[in-house]
Amino acid sequence: MTDLTQMGKAAKAASRQLAACSTERKNAALLAIAEELEAQAADILAQNALDIQDGKAKGLSEAVLDRLLLNEKRLAGLAADTRSVVALRDPVGAEFDSRVMPNGLRLCKRRVPVGVVGVIYEARPNVTIDIATLCLKTGNATILRGGSETLRSNIALVKVIQAALRRVEFPADAVQYLDNPDRALVAQLLRLDHYVDMLIPRGGASLHKLCREQSSIPVITGGMGICHIFVDESADLTRAVDIIENSKTQRPAACNALDTILVHPAVAAELLPKVAERLKRSNVALKADERAFPILQQAGFGDMTTPAVPEDFDQEWLGMTLGVKIVDTLDEAIAHIQDHSLDHTDSILTNDFARATRFVNEINSAAVFVNASTRFNDGGQFGLGAEVAISTQKLHARGPMGLEELTTYKWIGIGDGHIRK
Amino acid sequence: MTDLTQMGKAAKAASRQLAACSTERKNAALLAIAEELEAQAADILAQNALDIQDGKAKGLSEAVLDRLLLNEKRLAGLAADTRSVVALRDPVGAEFDSRVMPNGLRLCKRRVPVGVVGVIYEARPNVTIDIATLCLKTGNATILRGGSETLRSNIALVKVIQAALRRVEFPADAVQYLDNPDRALVAQLLRLDHYVDMLIPRGGASLHKLCREQSSIPVITGGMGICHIFVDESADLTRAVDIIENSKTQRPAACNALDTILVHPAVAAELLPKVAERLKRSNVALKADERAFPILQQAGFGDMTTPAVPEDFDQEWLGMTLGVKIVDTLDEAIAHIQDHSLDHTDSILTNDFARATRFVNEINSAAVFVNASTRFNDGGQFGLGAEVAISTQKLHARGPMGLEELTTYKWIGIGDGHIRK
Repeated sequence: MTDLTQMGKAAKAASRQLAACSTERKNAALLAIAEELEAQAADILAQNALDIQDGKAKGLSEAVLDRLLLNEKRLAGLAADTRSVVALRDPVGAEFDSRVMPNGLRLCKRRVPVGVVGVIYEARPNVTIDIATLCLKTGNATILRGGSETLRSNIALVKVIQAALRRVEFPADAVQYLDNPDRALVAQLLRLDHYVDMLIPRGGASLHKLCREQSSIPVITGGMGICHIFVDESADLTRAVDIIENSKTQRPAACNALDTILVHPAVAAELLPKVAERLKRSNVALKADERAFPILQQAGFGDMTTPAVPEDFDQEWLGMTLGVKIVDTLDEAIAHIQDHSLDHTDSILTNDFARATRFVNEINSAAVFVNASTRFNDGGQFGLGAEVAISTQKLHARGPMGLEELTTYKWIGIGDGHIRK
Repeated sequence: MTDLTQMGKAAKAASRQLAACSTERKNAALLAIAEELEAQAADILAQNALDIQDGKAKGLSEAVLDRLLLNEKRLAGLAADTRSVVALRDPVGAEFDSRVMPNGLRLCKRRVPVGVVGVIYEARPNVTIDIATLCLKTGNATILRGGSETLRSNIALVKVIQAALRRVEFPADAVQYLDNPDRALVAQLLRLDHYVDMLIPRGGASLHKLCREQSSIPVITGGMGICHIFVDESADLTRAVDIIENSKTQRPAACNALDTILVHPAVAAELLPKVAERLKRSNVALKADERAFPILQQAGFGDMTTPAVPEDFDQEWLGMTLGVKIVDTLDEAIAHIQDHSLDHTDSILTNDFARATRFVNEINSAAVFVNASTRFNDGGQFGLGAEVAISTQKLHARGPMGLEELTTYKWIGIGDGHIRK
């Protein structure tokens, strides 16, 4: 029987040991994990094969099966990723905002691990390794719960991680896996605030809603975006086509992929056919508002265009569909984005300094771009080295969460018999 | 009828206007509030007198009535406090962590307001002014809900604030008050995540529990502490008595007041009678464990000492009571604190460098002190200028929350036709 309270206690105890570990010891643990992944490859692949077999029997799509699949090459990639986490700078222990108060009390903030991180994630076995290693590097213990389609793969991976941790005399409870697929346990996990300090849900809107509404643990909301590009009348239209194509098609299932373009009427007649022509190559379907639709139809793109209904502008498409709307002014573009954005990523294409400045000032998404693809809102692209999630909430962290965002701080005050007057 | 959704919408709209306000305009609004508080003093005091009258009829204690009371002098103090917020540095708009990526994309983080802040607070009318002014200074709109005993005072104060905001052409909805005492509305407020970005409960354990369990808005938990001082064998005992007295008695109802002392046996026989003698002046009651009790009794302090029961070490006393326990080692002290602390404030008194270092490393409370009073964990004492709460959670902010902690950041990326490879 799964005893989540026991798992929470064990995680909390492990997190205290982890918090006191040097970077050197944490890196040794990561290297041991990489080695163990290689040594136990046969066992991991055998368990993964069973997951794949079940997935096929359940009729999962090829795309989903591909995300589930591990093979020699992918496993070697996971070991390499683990070694690359060794190379990342450890943010823990840094002291900042130091000051000496007028009474001589010396104050600073010191960066420390968050403690215990709970992560509920999609059915991708590589995420198990990503999250476990990034949390270990930052001294956090984890309780993991991945999608049920990868249950056996994940159990095998966590067994390997725990064996590696034991080998280097690390607390094995630093990485635990909720291996009971009973959904009632997720509800229990969400109430484990006595032991779990931070909860990261990765997955669809319903999981986020569940966590927001049910969790008594602070939740990092993110990973969902309705992303906009506003093409101003002064934009370089050739580059605009490139940026729109890149934002929409480079990885359409990503949360930073483009969902809606807003176009100034002065450039709509020239730009929209160019955009349609380019996106046709990727079989993108356009949902055009009542002003954009006739332009696209007249230009011969009626086959890939349908009239938009209002709800189309509240869709995160996660695929090859794009909303198209004509807006008369920057004000109208900003108002549309404020009403429809999920505060993830929005971009303006313009050569007008004042309008670029206003857009950056007034759009308050996690990432706001000028003349750049929405796809840049990403830990790797921002130079964070890695990411566990892209946050769209206001507290703690916004945008890509790298190592530093897996930490918090404590105040340290050094006195010499100081009392408060 | 109270329409919270309408309040939320109005707050969100106001927050967008506030986010675009210069520091100069925000300061003008604060000065207008200070003037209006003075101009409308008679009306505010009349409403407060009605609250006080009701409070007396309800049989509220003198201490509580004193917290509710406004008079000419206190109102002048609130106006002066408001003017002092003008002098604080505005954190909004600062850019930091700037970098140019290898592909030439220019990135930075810009500090921006959180948006809409919901605050549920105790029955103290001054808190209404504190929170409204600190949130205005940082460009945040607020929905306030104070204790019902100060309902009329708070309504009068917020009316004054809104009049001042209108006078300087600020959106009056920037500060709204939930003036319906129906408790069901609090539950509604906790679900207003579409409009409210951050929720700060100030008050007792039950309010925090309610918010943690029911709120779909990110909550800042804090304002509660079981605070410890560990007196090591190497401590300067004269200073130790001063620090313990200060920590316990300077403001016993504060969350950073001392709850438990842990004492090394080598100094217990000398220290405990001195502590008792000093605390007797303030009528402190001691709850002593089985080893400390006989020492105190033998030294003639049996009248102020009772044997501790285990639950006494899980009490936030909020008054003139102190737990006393003898621990044999630093390890035992750390373990006790880890098991009983609420991660608020803990302090070690020692002259041993290695033990001070270990205590600072291993205790992960929001503030950890060496040779200093627990009472220093405070926005004013830390030089933050002001505070809206003292956070004990790990995410977003720990310890005193000043102006910067009322902000978040957005990423800004400036490209030149940049697409992701």
